Amino acid sequence: MPKIVDHDKQRLLVAEAAWRVIRRDGMEHTSVRNIAKEANLSTGSMRHYFSTQSDLLLYAMNLVSERVTHRYHQMSLTGPPLEDMKKILLELLPNTDEKFAEMEVWFAFTVKSKTDPALKSLADNVYNELRQMATYVITHLMELRLTSLDLNVELEIERLYALIDGLAIHAILRPESMNAKVMDDILTLHLASLCDSQES
Amino acid sequence: MPKIVDHDKQRLLVAEAAWRVIRRDGMEHTSVRNIAKEANLSTGSMRHYFSTQSDLLLYAMNLVSERVTHRYHQMSLTGPPLEDMKKILLELLPNTDEKFAEMEVWFAFTVKSKTDPALKSLADNVYNELRQMATYVITHLMELRLTSLDLNVELEIERLYALIDGLAIHAILRPESMNAKVMDDILTLHLASLCDSQES
Repeated sequence: MPKIVDHDKQRLLVAEAAWRVIRRDGMEHTSVRNIAKEANLSTGSMRHYFSTQSDLLLYAMNLVSERVTHRYHQMSLTGPPLEDMKKILLELLPNTDEKFAEMEVWFAFTVKSKTDPALKSLADNVYNELRQMATYVITHLMELRLTSLDLNVELEIERLYALIDGLAIHAILRPESMNAKVMDDILTLHLASLCDSQES
Repeated sequence: MPKIVDHDKQRLLVAEAAWRVIRRDGMEHTSVRNIAKEANLSTGSMRHYFSTQSDLLLYAMNLVSERVTHRYHQMSLTGPPLEDMKKILLELLPNTDEKFAEMEVWFAFTVKSKTDPALKSLADNVYNELRQMATYVITHLMELRLTSLDLNVELEIERLYALIDGLAIHAILRPESMNAKVMDDILTLHLASLCDSQES
């Protein structure tokens, strides 16, 4: 079914063009006309791929989420627990060019989701998925009895999740100071501080 | 000089109208025409107050920063050190309606500053100012010998600052779960964990 493959491939190219417009010019320049121009398509032909601008943006936003999920499922965890947990958390941080681009686009979509009901439910789902990653890390370390006995589980999950998103945003805003090494070191420090009988 | 006072007051009303448009409709709707309408002014009369849309947005962004600075200078620190340091950090978090509004607007401006050179230098200045607050908190606790002796100062500053911005963003995205009490409790926990000889 070459037609369908082409159609899907074309939708992907359009979504990637939308990402480039968002990163270079900002969300306020993501008109169908501008994205068509970036994708080397006529504005008229765009309606073969997306019926509205809102559809296009939702697809482009979902593409970020799909790529993060895909990478996550490809991870292999075979090291010591603290290293594995750090690996999971580092997967969420913009420490490669590819993830940096995704995070910039995601950050812009997150702000837009505050005032655009069409994007709200996807933003909420991803928020919950990432919170589950933080939950997994904290509860896994607890189950292995690596954490202090008096750990406040709910607060530690929220603290870890806030730390992750704060690091991600600082990396986007200040890549020269919040770089891959600093993010890695901070996660090492944070996880060690949760398991102080073992590390500190 | 009533003329000048009126002029300044009018600029403030226009900036506040811009905030409302940003919060309700999003940054992509901040045309001079839309903001004029929100402020009950004619588009033509707007040029008395701001020469361009860019001037208007910079002024509206700077107003957030001014209000934060103003509140900061009015703070009185008279409690135990950990309480005082928490008070400084809580000042940066959206735990009142007024600060929630400011933070929503700031978040939108921060994303815009990534692609709008006119806003970049203000965003950078505020980034540095807030980082200085985190620096002050960490170094002050160290000077009082409340922290562990092996504290990695630079990493702890970046960790604290990332935590603060992560909490702020989660409060904006999920006010029902990341509320004033949870933010307070997480800061209590975080500061105590830095001073474990005293608290844990």
